[in-house]
Amino acid sequence: MRPFIHVNCAMSADGKIAGADRTQIRISSDEDKTRVKTIRKKYDAILVGVGTVLADDPHLTSKDGDYDTNPIRIVLDPHGRTPDEAQVLDERAPTVMVTLEDCDREWDCEEIIRAGHGRIDLEAVLEELADFGIENVLVEGGGRTIASFFEARLVDRYSVFVGGLVIGGSDAPTPCDGDGWVSEGGLRLELRDCEVLGNGALLTFEPRY
Amino acid sequence: MRPFIHVNCAMSADGKIAGADRTQIRISSDEDKTRVKTIRKKYDAILVGVGTVLADDPHLTSKDGDYDTNPIRIVLDPHGRTPDEAQVLDERAPTVMVTLEDCDREWDCEEIIRAGHGRIDLEAVLEELADFGIENVLVEGGGRTIASFFEARLVDRYSVFVGGLVIGGSDAPTPCDGDGWVSEGGLRLELRDCEVLGNGALLTFEPRY
Repeated sequence: MRPFIHVNCAMSADGKIAGADRTQIRISSDEDKTRVKTIRKKYDAILVGVGTVLADDPHLTSKDGDYDTNPIRIVLDPHGRTPDEAQVLDERAPTVMVTLEDCDREWDCEEIIRAGHGRIDLEAVLEELADFGIENVLVEGGGRTIASFFEARLVDRYSVFVGGLVIGGSDAPTPCDGDGWVSEGGLRLELRDCEVLGNGALLTFEPRY
Repeated sequence: MRPFIHVNCAMSADGKIAGADRTQIRISSDEDKTRVKTIRKKYDAILVGVGTVLADDPHLTSKDGDYDTNPIRIVLDPHGRTPDEAQVLDERAPTVMVTLEDCDREWDCEEIIRAGHGRIDLEAVLEELADFGIENVLVEGGGRTIASFFEARLVDRYSVFVGGLVIGGSDAPTPCDGDGWVSEGGLRLELRDCEVLGNGALLTFEPRY
């Protein structure tokens, strides 16, 4: 049984997750930030792509958590670009680095998974994660990572906070950018919940595969 | 007093208003389509950019309306690219074409406004529209047109239907693409209303200038 995959992100009212050139812009309301902190504790693992690590250097832990209580951090990094000093590799939580089979980069972390040629084999990765006892994963971005999960039809839940701001710009990243992946006619989702959280709304969808 | 500007659009749950290459994809629910038909009747004019005319060839009228009862149609077309056979120029409603001062293209329509050099001077256009008795305008897209209104800080209300589908692709158009316009730190909006309409949610915002 592969882990349950929940994709969670925040976009502006014009569909952007950051500014042009990936500049971080605050999109979530305080209420949404509190929600994200709460749901992070319910997941065995939090996953991001290397683009997010390089752009934002997130630590993906909670203040009151430690190595034994924080969720496992997973980074999809096909070409081994995560620097040793990235916060995601610090001592606050175990980290699993995921890279391509022919990438021989090493990191000082809990586990390194090498899966796939040319692109990461997500199904194989999830099988390995299940073997570690990981039952659910919160995918937090960025746009390419989220697109790869949608493309592989591995998303079980998609929640998006739509915040009260407009960013603009055709080059600004969106929740599902894809390396060119576009779903012809759109991949249909079912709206399950809609909730106002401060100055924005949280929409929760489940895909119809 | 310039006309009230209401920007209305529909985006997918990943922030796209169409597929890559501007392919039209159905995003609105039936409930949202009904709402749009209803609000169109409340506006003196409906405005789109030439990109939308060329991509979708919309007629922007309602079935039960005629030349005297349908809202006026306005097309922003800086370089005069709207073909004579476009549906927006048919006999079902009056049409105002807006182009640059140095564009000498003529159309068989109610009115041609020539305003601005290099780019359309929106404030001058709105002044002329006010002189015609137009008190409110519904701006329906596309992304560049919407961006030009946000950039000029002329938007009074922004409503966006977030539909239950994922489109994907970094090249797919978004509600506010802009010709490179990006609001540094984001242009702040105030959430005024949030309503589930079938398989999606309608969010209504007002800008905080």
